Amino acid sequence: MNAVIRAVTRSSILNGIRVMGVRRGYNGLISGDIFEMNLRTVSDIIHRGGTILYTARSPEFKTSDGISRAVEVCNDIGIDCVIAIGGDGSFRGARALSEAGIACMCIPGTIDNDIACSDYTVGFDTAINTAMEMIDKVRDTAQSHDRCSVVEVMGRRCGDIALHTGIAVGATAILVPEVKYDLERDVIERIKFTQRIGKKHFIIIVSEGLKNIAKISEGIQKIMGIESRTTILGHVQRGGSPTVRDRVIASEMGCYAVELLLKGIENRVIVVKKSEIVDIDINEALDMKKKFNRELYERALKISI
Amino acid sequence: MNAVIRAVTRSSILNGIRVMGVRRGYNGLISGDIFEMNLRTVSDIIHRGGTILYTARSPEFKTSDGISRAVEVCNDIGIDCVIAIGGDGSFRGARALSEAGIACMCIPGTIDNDIACSDYTVGFDTAINTAMEMIDKVRDTAQSHDRCSVVEVMGRRCGDIALHTGIAVGATAILVPEVKYDLERDVIERIKFTQRIGKKHFIIIVSEGLKNIAKISEGIQKIMGIESRTTILGHVQRGGSPTVRDRVIASEMGCYAVELLLKGIENRVIVVKKSEIVDIDINEALDMKKKFNRELYERALKISI
Amino acid sequence: MNAVIRAVTRSSILNGIRVMGVRRGYNGLISGDIFEMNLRTVSDIIHRGGTILYTARSPEFKTSDGISRAVEVCNDIGIDCVIAIGGDGSFRGARALSEAGIACMCIPGTIDNDIACSDYTVGFDTAINTAMEMIDKVRDTAQSHDRCSVVEVMGRRCGDIALHTGIAVGATAILVPEVKYDLERDVIERIKFTQRIGKKHFIIIVSEGLKNIAKISEGIQKIMGIESRTTILGHVQRGGSPTVRDRVIASEMGCYAVELLLKGIENRVIVVKKSEIVDIDINEALDMKKKFNRELYERALKISI
Amino acid sequence: MNAVIRAVTRSSILNGIRVMGVRRGYNGLISGDIFEMNLRTVSDIIHRGGTILYTARSPEFKTSDGISRAVEVCNDIGIDCVIAIGGDGSFRGARALSEAGIACMCIPGTIDNDIACSDYTVGFDTAINTAMEMIDKVRDTAQSHDRCSVVEVMGRRCGDIALHTGIAVGATAILVPEVKYDLERDVIERIKFTQRIGKKHFIIIVSEGLKNIAKISEGIQKIMGIESRTTILGHVQRGGSPTVRDRVIASEMGCYAVELLLKGIENRVIVVKKSEIVDIDINEALDMKKKFNRELYERALKISI
Repeated sequence: MNAVIRAVTRSSILNGIRVMGVRRGYNGLISGDIFEMNLRTVSDIIHRGGTILYTARSPEFKTSDGISRAVEVCNDIGIDCVIAIGGDGSFRGARALSEAGIACMCIPGTIDNDIACSDYTVGFDTAINTAMEMIDKVRDTAQSHDRCSVVEVMGRRCGDIALHTGIAVGATAILVPEVKYDLERDVIERIKFTQRIGKKHFIIIVSEGLKNIAKISEGIQKIMGIESRTTILGHVQRGGSPTVRDRVIASEMGCYAVELLLKGIENRVIVVKKSEIVDIDINEALDMKKKFNRELYERALKISI
Repeated sequence: MNAVIRAVTRSSILNGIRVMGVRRGYNGLISGDIFEMNLRTVSDIIHRGGTILYTARSPEFKTSDGISRAVEVCNDIGIDCVIAIGGDGSFRGARALSEAGIACMCIPGTIDNDIACSDYTVGFDTAINTAMEMIDKVRDTAQSHDRCSVVEVMGRRCGDIALHTGIAVGATAILVPEVKYDLERDVIERIKFTQRIGKKHFIIIVSEGLKNIAKISEGIQKIMGIESRTTILGHVQRGGSPTVRDRVIASEMGCYAVELLLKGIENRVIVVKKSEIVDIDINEALDMKKKFNRELYERALKISI
Repeated sequence: MNAVIRAVTRSSILNGIRVMGVRRGYNGLISGDIFEMNLRTVSDIIHRGGTILYTARSPEFKTSDGISRAVEVCNDIGIDCVIAIGGDGSFRGARALSEAGIACMCIPGTIDNDIACSDYTVGFDTAINTAMEMIDKVRDTAQSHDRCSVVEVMGRRCGDIALHTGIAVGATAILVPEVKYDLERDVIERIKFTQRIGKKHFIIIVSEGLKNIAKISEGIQKIMGIESRTTILGHVQRGGSPTVRDRVIASEMGCYAVELLLKGIENRVIVVKKSEIVDIDINEALDMKKKFNRELYERALKISI
Repeated sequence: MNAVIRAVTRSSILNGIRVMGVRRGYNGLISGDIFEMNLRTVSDIIHRGGTILYTARSPEFKTSDGISRAVEVCNDIGIDCVIAIGGDGSFRGARALSEAGIACMCIPGTIDNDIACSDYTVGFDTAINTAMEMIDKVRDTAQSHDRCSVVEVMGRRCGDIALHTGIAVGATAILVPEVKYDLERDVIERIKFTQRIGKKHFIIIVSEGLKNIAKISEGIQKIMGIESRTTILGHVQRGGSPTVRDRVIASEMGCYAVELLLKGIENRVIVVKKSEIVDIDINEALDMKKKFNRELYERALKISI
């Protein structure tokens, strides 16, 4: 987040554009919690987790009254364009704002990688590395105790965190919202198979969206007779100093957004497509459906034995 | 753990003592899951979490039959002395073994720092640093969202993990099993006080032993109207590459145990007392009661405002 | 590295192909330092830095005698195909081997990201994150002391490590082998500009290939009168537990190589092109020239102010 | 550092004492670069490396003119007592100030643990853990290449960083300023011995104070015929988020200093003695001589085989 804010601020000012920081998302746009930013406002923030602008949901912004007030505030202060960083909700807000006459740019920033229009969302790489490091530690205990560890990672609607961390930690099974699972076939059978070839501890990764981690763990313990423990990684995955990849892509997206503005292009979402930064229309972006990387999922199953 | 095993193995062999590794605790002593160790068996393990000897509870060892079998196995293999690493349970096992004629040495190794006889137990420093790093990440989110985070750390009977990590992360309140708490006085009032002087996000650290983290979080949300979230750090705290302090103290304790053996001294617990490695009698050790560092607790409250 | 070895081993065995591990690169192929691998040989290695097969340069393999002996060994043991992980040198060796009748597959594995044919080489993401974490620490001191820190990162012929870590740490200047630099224009002027707008500490990232880090540092100190210190990150960048990205791409490449073999395709380099895993001919691969990401470099300069 | 500043600030204000922050050490005291601190000034700093008050050497403060000006500034602003955090130099400055009529308190803060009067100095635990993590990464490469790594760690006059990290990484030899070394006996012979029992990669830790790391490395390569590489860890060791131990001891020392002031006690150094926080007279403190932990050094040699 901070890397985007920094890149937008600096490349704007360098091109003679003034930048205002809006605190706590659309709430700040309604209440006028807005301040002018300069080159030094964004010093020493690129390595910090969280966001210097704070964040919050804004139910009021979903009403036409909320939108009107925000437009008024923008006009009063002289804000021509709003750059929104976030997920689908933030993009829908931006679209509403653009329909009311304030130009918008959207930058995908969620840890879940759950935005259909972009191959990558800022925050994902940091989240998966944090999750992996924690599961690597859980592994030490699982191994010392010959145990099964069932670990819930974030990802309500999108299994990408589970898939990538699952591959990275060598999970025996990976359960994601995109693929229906059968405990017997997708977990028990896989444990049995690897047990036969000598494996004594097992890690099962489960996406938050599946919600029955305790039942899965009990099922394993009952059917297999192996001690099984659950761990919910939780909010730890949301914080921490960002990885290089997140800092670099965030910086690129921030620069790219300002480059578009300078060309007079508006109401776009900045996305990663096949490892390049490009832009697409907000409406188009919101209509797209996220595809799950089935091929990667199949490969994961092949080598986690 | 591995650092102890390495130090015991190497300083023994260097002094002409043979060393056998027993797998899965007292179970291995009963089943004979024992192998000879050499200088290279313990190569490249000092930086690894977990233990190369595995660990497990042994209900069988609590019966006189179990003890007899273990003694038989020791006599068959020619084991003169058993070095046990663990907590009170492991020490009680060692005492039973010593009463049955097999000399013992005990080394305190628990992440909770819950062993009365020693100021320090191997694993504590690693656990508190892991917990702190995770809570530092939770803090990023708490801060960006102006939230309260209620975080459960390990420590069933001993609040040392909560106390040290609580100070380290600047927790607004720290709840431990040794000090009775009152939600209103010890949490709400403290949040209110710091809120008045400008604080907007709060971290509350709760020891595992208190068990009602969800209720505490709900209480805060209801009374204060601040969004409050719980995080249970769980087993992640048990693993990971050990810190310098753990590796060094573990190495010292392992060496010290062998030095005692060479002097013909047996049935002792190796402990840290006022930052020195010394030894005390097993019976005496098991009779001691852990004292909570009340002074440190008071200081913690003073500066977490 | 270990993730590639694991993926190749497991997906081969799952498809009925036997896998032999060759120790210390082409040296092992000449001396016959080769052992059969099974599913458990590659257990618990995906999170470890380094390689379980060791590595070494092999001058002997560059002679026709060396090649002949390696071919003999392959024929004796029954090795049909060699999978080589490494850089251009390893690929040239593989080509020689394939010309002598032993099929080969190449997988790009260098921390420098210096292989022309692939957008990504296994090890790069881990190296840049390690470098960034170290420079983030250097920054603390630079900031507390109002100093300039000149940091040398790896990359003899390729500036990608410098470019990515430079962006990630917000370096005031980034010097790479691909872009000729002028101390006055590219370093001093940039420091002066940011100094005028309030910056008091500066980080300069220099690729290993440029070799005059001490002179750069002295130049800054003399001309600007700012205390300037050099840090050479060195071999620390080569080790450490791999990131998710490295583990995942390595796993994919390993699987992909075996998938090709099963289709009867040989003598290919497995590469990442526009975020997809594809394959190209070894000769073609060795003829390609690495392009520097000039656009990213320009953006980096824009926001590091 | 920041943890000390935070503890002093908060426990002072809680007791009705006003706190002024002095920037850039004694320079700020001379130039009047001083600002009032409140409870929020020290929010969200406990986990940050470096110091919010900056630091710098002050040659001017070593002159009687400098002292006089500082005393004047203190009197003008109404500063009754100065709390100095640092090493012997800072303490000598504090003594001079106290002799000129401004009360002082000293808190030992150096990464080298080189202050005679205290068993522990704030910053040491963070530095040794940072060094260890880096050397653990160097180890991966040393192992994969069957190499010797000669690593220089900080510690000009004090070998504690070398000793503790040396034990923690299982170094084959540890060279410190306190113990005269002989390359043949203390390095070569030790490598030869462990080589005979199967070791193939070696880590040699050298204190900065010894200054001839390149010669040591060349010596090993020439005599043993093993590839040997040097790494200088450098300033990375000075930064980074502090460990629990540093944050807790720093907090305790800060509180303790204020507790003394409230009792009317002045001109003391706050120290750790046998794991307790106590205080001693500044003059006495400056007269003491640091003792090297020879016993720990001997044990280190015993198990690094």
